Amino acid sequence: MPVISLLTDFGLSDSYAGIMKGVIASLCPDARVIDITHQVAPGDIYGAAYALSSACPYFPKDTIHVTVVDPGVGSGRRIIAVRTGAGIFLAPDNGVLSMVADKYRVSAAYSVENRDIFIHPVSKTFHGRDIFAPVAAYLACKMDMAELGPAVSEKSLVRLDYAQRPELDEKGRLCGSVIAVDRFGNLITNIGREDIEEAFGAGRADGQEDICINAGDRIIRGISESYSSVPEGALLAIIGSTGRLEISVNAGNAASQLKLGRKDRVTAAPCDAIND
Amino acid sequence: MPVISLLTDFGLSDSYAGIMKGVIASLCPDARVIDITHQVAPGDIYGAAYALSSACPYFPKDTIHVTVVDPGVGSGRRIIAVRTGAGIFLAPDNGVLSMVADKYRVSAAYSVENRDIFIHPVSKTFHGRDIFAPVAAYLACKMDMAELGPAVSEKSLVRLDYAQRPELDEKGRLCGSVIAVDRFGNLITNIGREDIEEAFGAGRADGQEDICINAGDRIIRGISESYSSVPEGALLAIIGSTGRLEISVNAGNAASQLKLGRKDRVTAAPCDAIND
Amino acid sequence: MPVISLLTDFGLSDSYAGIMKGVIASLCPDARVIDITHQVAPGDIYGAAYALSSACPYFPKDTIHVTVVDPGVGSGRRIIAVRTGAGIFLAPDNGVLSMVADKYRVSAAYSVENRDIFIHPVSKTFHGRDIFAPVAAYLACKMDMAELGPAVSEKSLVRLDYAQRPELDEKGRLCGSVIAVDRFGNLITNIGREDIEEAFGAGRADGQEDICINAGDRIIRGISESYSSVPEGALLAIIGSTGRLEISVNAGNAASQLKLGRKDRVTAAPCDAIND
Repeated sequence: MPVISLLTDFGLSDSYAGIMKGVIASLCPDARVIDITHQVAPGDIYGAAYALSSACPYFPKDTIHVTVVDPGVGSGRRIIAVRTGAGIFLAPDNGVLSMVADKYRVSAAYSVENRDIFIHPVSKTFHGRDIFAPVAAYLACKMDMAELGPAVSEKSLVRLDYAQRPELDEKGRLCGSVIAVDRFGNLITNIGREDIEEAFGAGRADGQEDICINAGDRIIRGISESYSSVPEGALLAIIGSTGRLEISVNAGNAASQLKLGRKDRVTAAPCDAIND
Repeated sequence: MPVISLLTDFGLSDSYAGIMKGVIASLCPDARVIDITHQVAPGDIYGAAYALSSACPYFPKDTIHVTVVDPGVGSGRRIIAVRTGAGIFLAPDNGVLSMVADKYRVSAAYSVENRDIFIHPVSKTFHGRDIFAPVAAYLACKMDMAELGPAVSEKSLVRLDYAQRPELDEKGRLCGSVIAVDRFGNLITNIGREDIEEAFGAGRADGQEDICINAGDRIIRGISESYSSVPEGALLAIIGSTGRLEISVNAGNAASQLKLGRKDRVTAAPCDAIND
Repeated sequence: MPVISLLTDFGLSDSYAGIMKGVIASLCPDARVIDITHQVAPGDIYGAAYALSSACPYFPKDTIHVTVVDPGVGSGRRIIAVRTGAGIFLAPDNGVLSMVADKYRVSAAYSVENRDIFIHPVSKTFHGRDIFAPVAAYLACKMDMAELGPAVSEKSLVRLDYAQRPELDEKGRLCGSVIAVDRFGNLITNIGREDIEEAFGAGRADGQEDICINAGDRIIRGISESYSSVPEGALLAIIGSTGRLEISVNAGNAASQLKLGRKDRVTAAPCDAIND
């Protein structure tokens, strides 16, 4: 029986996430539901896209990933179901699947329009309950995706505009930005290990002292091997769990210490070039 | 195997909710547990009653719904188990089942007194662990409700005093109030679609421009078809997912914008009567 | 199929806890996962130790308890797997299992070093995903603990320094401290029912009026039978669900009313001795 993952901005104080699980348990009792998170900031499509693309590689390959961050609920926006090598993704067509689509080949996409599998009356404000949950349940119980509605082209899907990779400037510095801040205050950037190695040479991303990082008004010398490589309260740079450069504070919070957040600039370069 | 739903004010920072699940897994390993929410405000019986009555219609009809919002824990208050068409409800007898009982016929009610199925020693402060969880587990594993304790009459159950429906004033305005505020700041009122249609005519609740809503010091003209029917940041009224009139802000937060909350007054009327 | 419990400081806003569940579902699909909590304060080993030792007695005896509060992730700290009468405990060797080890006999302990069962590449920052989750999944699917790595002695495990029991001072007062504060603001102390009975006589811990409690600048007279034994808003002392003395406010929050928190001093004594 496939897993259904849920990723929403419903929070955990209201009953919305629980209701989706009630619908799924009613329609496909054997489906197993796993929460990715329900605490995406309200309407934060980008944050949801990041969380989804970070999490989906670690789920079973036949998972049905349901994302409901849907500020356009009740409008004419489409609901789409997309098949990839990382499972089926069900989401509003608002760009939230962009990062997944950049990572995995989309082998089929459908516009979810078959009202026979919705809960009626379909509300104007809670398609998580009335459309996403029953559709996920039917898919988990082996309904064919082609029954959801007409096939659509991958090119027709709404794309999020985001800086997937950093840029190399004329002085040879990798210019990236913060793409996520986690509970610990770690500043996760779009500078990948492979970006550093491509720009500065193989093996330059791990435990190197001659790569410097500029974040806010601070220069961090070297890329650490672990948080505790530096004293408590000290800043460090490290290759984090998604293979990207992160700025952290050992036993502290880099986001609040540096007053930086999503979209703020982070630069990496050989130390002799960082200040040029 | 029936589902057990959990609805408490235990929060998610302590281990209390997890402990209830540990007890259930110990006593009825095949039971499936679904959280409605654990983040009801401490002791907020009304909020729990609303969340429960909103959620239970979407769960399997043999669900065992466990509600532990229980400021009287350890006192003489009864614990009750109630059978309805929406499943079995287990709760302290403090009114938290009132909204469910107004929606579904109660076919049987029992006072939970059979100490043989409690965990001993029964603490004075955590009946969720010592009574509610084991009783739910035994019910899920097919114990008969009559074994819980003596049958009691529905009339003996504690009732919450709440404004289930709005009132029509002498000027023909529907005078209601906010009954819940969700994570998005949506102000959910006790004015139902059917109240509007009864008062102002069939079809007057959806997409109408000549019904006006008064909330705080603002007048909202018309009932929208979706959040995005109005510009971002603008107020709107909409029939929400429970069939009730809600006040929202597109891509914003109505509760903070209007500084309104539970019990605050909301009025609906034909636009020419709203200001009378 | 054993239960896997999860206890982390990952929070619920990021996808970290969901990712661990994705890994477990991938490697041992039948394992059942129960969250104890993911909202331990970042890096709070003591808080995790308390939550774990409070929760584990109520789980099935073959549960695999996974604790990831791991400020030393990526450093040389060991990861240990410990067998006790309350199940298997998997955790960083940083003291987080101290309270469990004080409660249950450790019958075997292993250093988790078998890289064949990790997810590769092993990140420097997220061993929850790359080590703890797959190891827990393999254990749930019946891998023998001896395959995890070399056996280690219980004495080699890192110990947390904490005040397990209160002390009796020269005036016959039990001098303890707050060990946890829960969502309700209850101040949970290290003064157990058995400490009170040992010091002041059998039966002196429940519903007694002649034991007085000193917390902050307040004296509480007597140990109550339930929260509602005192008026709303009033302070009380009560034996809580872990058998320890707690300071509470009926329908209120003792921590904020008294401005007390973890490690603050609480004293219990016969009332005529409390002020000496």
